[in-house]
Amino acid sequence: MKLYTYFRSSAAFRVRIALNLKGLAYETAFIHLAKGEHRAPAYGAINPQSLLPTLEDGGRLLTQSLAIIEYLEETHPQPPLLPKDPLARARVRSLAMLIACEIHPVNNLRVLTHLKRALGQSEEQVNAWYRHWIADGLAKFEADLARGKDGGRFCHGDQPGMADCCLVPQIFNAQRYQCDTAPFPATMRTFAECMKLEAFDRAQPSKQPDAD
Amino acid sequence: MKLYTYFRSSAAFRVRIALNLKGLAYETAFIHLAKGEHRAPAYGAINPQSLLPTLEDGGRLLTQSLAIIEYLEETHPQPPLLPKDPLARARVRSLAMLIACEIHPVNNLRVLTHLKRALGQSEEQVNAWYRHWIADGLAKFEADLARGKDGGRFCHGDQPGMADCCLVPQIFNAQRYQCDTAPFPATMRTFAECMKLEAFDRAQPSKQPDAD
Repeated sequence: MKLYTYFRSSAAFRVRIALNLKGLAYETAFIHLAKGEHRAPAYGAINPQSLLPTLEDGGRLLTQSLAIIEYLEETHPQPPLLPKDPLARARVRSLAMLIACEIHPVNNLRVLTHLKRALGQSEEQVNAWYRHWIADGLAKFEADLARGKDGGRFCHGDQPGMADCCLVPQIFNAQRYQCDTAPFPATMRTFAECMKLEAFDRAQPSKQPDAD
Repeated sequence: MKLYTYFRSSAAFRVRIALNLKGLAYETAFIHLAKGEHRAPAYGAINPQSLLPTLEDGGRLLTQSLAIIEYLEETHPQPPLLPKDPLARARVRSLAMLIACEIHPVNNLRVLTHLKRALGQSEEQVNAWYRHWIADGLAKFEADLARGKDGGRFCHGDQPGMADCCLVPQIFNAQRYQCDTAPFPATMRTFAECMKLEAFDRAQPSKQPDAD
């Protein structure tokens, strides 16, 4: 397998964690997001959405981080990243999607760039935007996590799964922008548990070969 | 089953389509998004994310539209909303998530309200923002759809599925904001095919009891 990745891409980070958790080795191709390499026609031929990541598996090209993680779950079921019970699966997917569909998209690089260039927002205003949506989104995550918490170490039970794959990159982003995470104790305890695992630690941005 | 819904919520619209495609009857509870009823503590007790929709199934509460659709797929497999082959499933999920994780979140009501109130953007500027992200996102969707198109009527093959459940509400939004959809012919042909089906037509905003 080959992962088209960028060290700071949250979505690529999610897939790096999932691959590590499943013990799958992969090659890497580095696409420099900040330099706009994802918008080049050469990459568009690989990923028509021109987004990161892309996973190549036996010549087949897969896109969108959560679709890739579902594919890995279906093709390499062990260890599972989703529980067995449909209701529990729905809970884990809902937590993952709260991050992937509500928090992260509003703060991704192309939105921040648009705020600066098209709306003339200052760096300080862009940072305030970033922190606003982190606070809004993590409050929702904390409320959901706290309600469904089953005493397990991770988002659901004692095995890390799809929701943890999404949570950890989001917290890295929150910390990078110096967001206040004190109001989210259950979330931050779960993050800390994840970071004790080599699969999460090895996937972090600063440990990628393309980190600058 | 009971669906907590709002006629104009794209995410609720996705689940209404999925329930109709699967032939599942449901009761409704109307949560008025524009009046902020989703932020009331009473609804927070039902959905800790304070978002629409919520599906209640035998007293169990499910959140996040795509997690709900995956749950329906697992608990009511016929007719399927995902193909059987893992690679094909990944393609359908990727198209669905391109809408749910890239296009819709940047244009949802709370983001538009924040642009107005916190960033002081005029209605005209907010509309320009809306159209910008529709054009950006649908161009990606069109490129992906065109590449993988298998001659079928829908996003994948001749059966409507999860990607179609996401596409149709997004096109309704695009049309409501008078976005130019001419550059996206494959996407619009697929939309037109969907709208020939009663399951999609009956789910549309103007046909909901809470439409104003």
